[in-house]
Amino acid sequence: MRIYNFSAGPAALPTPVLEQVREELLDWHGAGMGIMEMSHRGKDFMSVIAAAEADLRALMGIPDGYKVLFLQGGATQMFAQIPMNLLAGRSADYVVTGAWSKKAWKEAPHIGPVRLAGTTEADGRFTRLPAADELSFDPDAAYVHLCTNETIHGVEMFDLPATPAGVPLVADMSSHILSRPMDVSRYGLIYAGAQKNIGPAGLVLVIVREDLLGRASAATPSVMNFATMAEHGSMLNTPPTFGIYLAGLIFKDLLRQGGLAAVEAANRAKAERLYDAIDGSGGFYRNPVDRPCRSLMNVPFTLADPALEADFLAEAAARRLAGLKGHKSVGGMRASIYNAMTLDGVEALVDLMQDFARRKA
Amino acid sequence: MRIYNFSAGPAALPTPVLEQVREELLDWHGAGMGIMEMSHRGKDFMSVIAAAEADLRALMGIPDGYKVLFLQGGATQMFAQIPMNLLAGRSADYVVTGAWSKKAWKEAPHIGPVRLAGTTEADGRFTRLPAADELSFDPDAAYVHLCTNETIHGVEMFDLPATPAGVPLVADMSSHILSRPMDVSRYGLIYAGAQKNIGPAGLVLVIVREDLLGRASAATPSVMNFATMAEHGSMLNTPPTFGIYLAGLIFKDLLRQGGLAAVEAANRAKAERLYDAIDGSGGFYRNPVDRPCRSLMNVPFTLADPALEADFLAEAAARRLAGLKGHKSVGGMRASIYNAMTLDGVEALVDLMQDFARRKA
Repeated sequence: MRIYNFSAGPAALPTPVLEQVREELLDWHGAGMGIMEMSHRGKDFMSVIAAAEADLRALMGIPDGYKVLFLQGGATQMFAQIPMNLLAGRSADYVVTGAWSKKAWKEAPHIGPVRLAGTTEADGRFTRLPAADELSFDPDAAYVHLCTNETIHGVEMFDLPATPAGVPLVADMSSHILSRPMDVSRYGLIYAGAQKNIGPAGLVLVIVREDLLGRASAATPSVMNFATMAEHGSMLNTPPTFGIYLAGLIFKDLLRQGGLAAVEAANRAKAERLYDAIDGSGGFYRNPVDRPCRSLMNVPFTLADPALEADFLAEAAARRLAGLKGHKSVGGMRASIYNAMTLDGVEALVDLMQDFARRKA
Repeated sequence: MRIYNFSAGPAALPTPVLEQVREELLDWHGAGMGIMEMSHRGKDFMSVIAAAEADLRALMGIPDGYKVLFLQGGATQMFAQIPMNLLAGRSADYVVTGAWSKKAWKEAPHIGPVRLAGTTEADGRFTRLPAADELSFDPDAAYVHLCTNETIHGVEMFDLPATPAGVPLVADMSSHILSRPMDVSRYGLIYAGAQKNIGPAGLVLVIVREDLLGRASAATPSVMNFATMAEHGSMLNTPPTFGIYLAGLIFKDLLRQGGLAAVEAANRAKAERLYDAIDGSGGFYRNPVDRPCRSLMNVPFTLADPALEADFLAEAAARRLAGLKGHKSVGGMRASIYNAMTLDGVEALVDLMQDFARRKA
């Protein structure tokens, strides 16, 4: 019944987690009502959000001194909300390595001044990370903003650029959070829209170092003020309760799998299988990204003959492989292989790719 | 299995709708994936959001010349987002008739100047609507803000105050939208958090007259700019897809019931039964609100002897009636009897109230 869903986001969710959601939808743990129908201030939902936070802290090894916030508006709202909260009358530096970091950089000037610390854009494409000498940072910047995995361009940072001491790093991790262990202590703020590795759209996660709270401008709406939301346990307003519940189930599922080291091993096996198929196709398929920064989550690839794309997608659909059409700005195909994508799904895609190439090459 | 849930919000959802959600959760209409897992830009989800809008337009009789937006952040974010979009360098007037309109009035000054057009607060309580001579409006106001149903205080507007010609009315209808027909053409902007009569928390509905678009300040984040979101069909960013889907099912369910006139008749029958039980209790129960503005949706009531409240709640729980504890600022009990609450549920509450009063009076 279920297909292999390579959608970039909203994306596949783990089948066993959805089965649990289905089981509990009308009656959560004997409460006589579903999670969606409960007061967010009742003890049942309070236990759900507390467990979600505790499990996330365990999974990611979030140190003391960081707050975890469950917010709304997605990463796109964060593009404005972060400068509202962190600029504090200064300027911020943006590193642009793909469509999403570029959007963040373009949105921030609604709120205050920002600088471009460097970009790898060339002819509208992004296929690599910047060398150290392509970046210039303001030592007085309020923060440096990065997107550590570019969903559209498939460029992932495995090492962070050298940035001035004392300037906090702010990272959009929407499309690779929870895909492997990350050292949270290297960041001032991490944010991630839920709809890839966390849960349903409509929830955005923020992990923020406490010393960065309290710098918001007076014009910051209360629900967009990280300090206010931290004081209120993400519940100054009614939070997206169903999304938080589902995220909590995902966190528990990842812990059951052995935590993020085990998740990384599975993700590396999937990505290796797919990149090997691309690189071993004798040029029939091609991924344009520099090898050291190829994303483990989002694998764009083109066919040497673009006229074959429609056939490829039709055959994929016939094999129940969905969501493979590439982003319009890049073209070709894109396989998003988030945590919920199984190795079986990747094998099914590789089988198609190899079979298709054999017949059409 | 299901209990009678009188929670003020998040609140009970109709059981048949939740059963459909459960049925489709892992495989929507044969797509091989659930709604939560689909690209918001694919034809399946686009058909879902288009149907939700069309059904809402039919239900509410939304005239041409109004845009419907499905946004995030709840009514609380709207308290800031509305002045961002509508002040346009002017001031706005706020009518304060309960906790929620007061919150809206307190939040707006983060963004720009507002005036208090009048308030009915007395000793921290709200139990009535203002008389015409208690309101003074600025004829040059950018808008007049009202909350047409106060969830905590149980005060509902059945008639609108007389306001200066040409000044658009902005109404927070969170807790009574879709409870009865409303004349949308009388408003410049209507907004409502979903978690009472629309669907799950995390979705907020905005209905805005087109001539009010395009007035946002330059500091307005793109996803908070109503004009930008209208241009992008609520999808500049990833919308809360599951909430929109569920709201669409609710709209269809209300149309099946005969539309809002039929819904109003059912709601009036429920409210009458409950208020009659309160008023007929010889003072054992008491609702403090002026009769002409008693809410059809939120019925706060106190017991003459507050020492009996714990017993009352315990007996309610034993009869599987939940969510009756009043808001801490008002005390006593509150029965929220939104669209999804059945007359059977209200009868069960009235039975308890009458039985309890007989034994304890």
